[in-house]
Amino acid sequence: MKIGFIGLGIMGRPMALNLLKAGFELTVYNRTASKCETLREAGADVASSPAEAARGADAVITIVSNTCDVEEVLLGPQGVHQGIASGAVVIDMSTISPIATEQFARRFEELGVSMLDAPVSGGDTGAQAGTLSIMVGGPAEAFQRCLPVFQAMGKTITHIGPSGHGQKTKLVNQVLGAGTCMAMVDAVRLMQKSGLDCDKAIQALAGGAAGSWQWSNLAPRVVAEDFAPGFMIKLLSKDLRLVEELARSLNLELPIQQETAQCFFKAEASGLGDLGTQGVYRLFEKK
Amino acid sequence: MKIGFIGLGIMGRPMALNLLKAGFELTVYNRTASKCETLREAGADVASSPAEAARGADAVITIVSNTCDVEEVLLGPQGVHQGIASGAVVIDMSTISPIATEQFARRFEELGVSMLDAPVSGGDTGAQAGTLSIMVGGPAEAFQRCLPVFQAMGKTITHIGPSGHGQKTKLVNQVLGAGTCMAMVDAVRLMQKSGLDCDKAIQALAGGAAGSWQWSNLAPRVVAEDFAPGFMIKLLSKDLRLVEELARSLNLELPIQQETAQCFFKAEASGLGDLGTQGVYRLFEKK
Repeated sequence: MKIGFIGLGIMGRPMALNLLKAGFELTVYNRTASKCETLREAGADVASSPAEAARGADAVITIVSNTCDVEEVLLGPQGVHQGIASGAVVIDMSTISPIATEQFARRFEELGVSMLDAPVSGGDTGAQAGTLSIMVGGPAEAFQRCLPVFQAMGKTITHIGPSGHGQKTKLVNQVLGAGTCMAMVDAVRLMQKSGLDCDKAIQALAGGAAGSWQWSNLAPRVVAEDFAPGFMIKLLSKDLRLVEELARSLNLELPIQQETAQCFFKAEASGLGDLGTQGVYRLFEKK
Repeated sequence: MKIGFIGLGIMGRPMALNLLKAGFELTVYNRTASKCETLREAGADVASSPAEAARGADAVITIVSNTCDVEEVLLGPQGVHQGIASGAVVIDMSTISPIATEQFARRFEELGVSMLDAPVSGGDTGAQAGTLSIMVGGPAEAFQRCLPVFQAMGKTITHIGPSGHGQKTKLVNQVLGAGTCMAMVDAVRLMQKSGLDCDKAIQALAGGAAGSWQWSNLAPRVVAEDFAPGFMIKLLSKDLRLVEELARSLNLELPIQQETAQCFFKAEASGLGDLGTQGVYRLFEKK
């Protein structure tokens, strides 16, 4: 199976390397061409445009920063749509607007090309280890055909439903993660201000009904003042803006989510954007 | 070891039965005397006042509804302080004000009696199974002496620190649980309104960085419209009022927690108090 791969950032590069390791034939493209060298050395061909990366490919994967970048590489002047063959599959693994995703999928359908939206969670460590969670929307037939591709990059791979449902599931994940993170931060602040032994208290609550991944993994880091990113505040803020767009389109009010999003937006505006999400704690620490 | 046991409600009764099963000699007291019958049949003595339950006991356990009930059974006219011997231990397993707890402990210290605050989590099912989490504050020596008593009722038993620290840890637990619950509710609402396959989406997110006990256990109940209580909204609201008292005394602002608490208070005021905490969802469902 021949794959075009577009976007060799912190996530894309290790994912592309895992595809090579699994034996797929790869042609890569990246806006900053120098980032292609590692992949060239590992055996990939290098294309000079998204259209060229798509030429002759059975599947084209895109993983770039945001909605307009995806639009540019897919449908721009030198975009994937210029090179891709009828019968191939486009797999967008970026986290972008589900509304735009549905529009892109319709454009490719007109060319006889199926599009899957397949955003991931698990961060750069999951990308390196090949243990990402992948949430997929789009035609079931295309999903089945591309399953070996997903299996080379991820562990928990779920076909959720039609086009856009991968992106929507990812946004539900971000609502859940951001809210759970804020609950963790509030609880840590009360724990510290109460003068409790934090190690003992974190341990005592971890296995109960209040427990979460965030509590077990990030509360100890907050206490140790370790704000290094697993997942950066500025990236979560970007996703929470997509949540706002989606909620608005559904006429849905999420009061706690709105407060939570404001905290992450404020943290980003205060220069904390490059910290891990647990760094939202630093918004409050001086109060 | 001879134990006085005061408070045979939904939590106290199965906990007292587990103590009998473990071989402890029990004298029970309950304000509504008829609730003592099950315990009498199981082999407990029945006292006609808290003071009488405390007479000759090595340890006296209280588990009643709120701070003034604890004050009444401990320090009221017929209270534990009238019967308890110097050298014995008072163990309050209710969830009450940590500030009042510290005052009660000082009163008993004057009588030569150690007091432990040992609130629990795990609900009535945990109380029946003897698998409660028990968070203990108070003198280490008294904790060690009473450890076999705790082991007859719970599984995760942690001595957190001095008097009041059990209650404070319990309140941190409630902040964490309430916030994580609201994140779950927001995420479920977005999931449903987006038209996602809820079973698949819940499963897809459960093992990742957004996962929590609340998500795995309560999100499926919300989707199934099962609002039966594990833990009732009105009891969580009571605990969140204790959190407000504690935060105020520490001059600590917890903005998301305050919004979260308002949701549970509103739910209680809207007649949803007897539902499980996941029932806070019903505050929003008509919007």
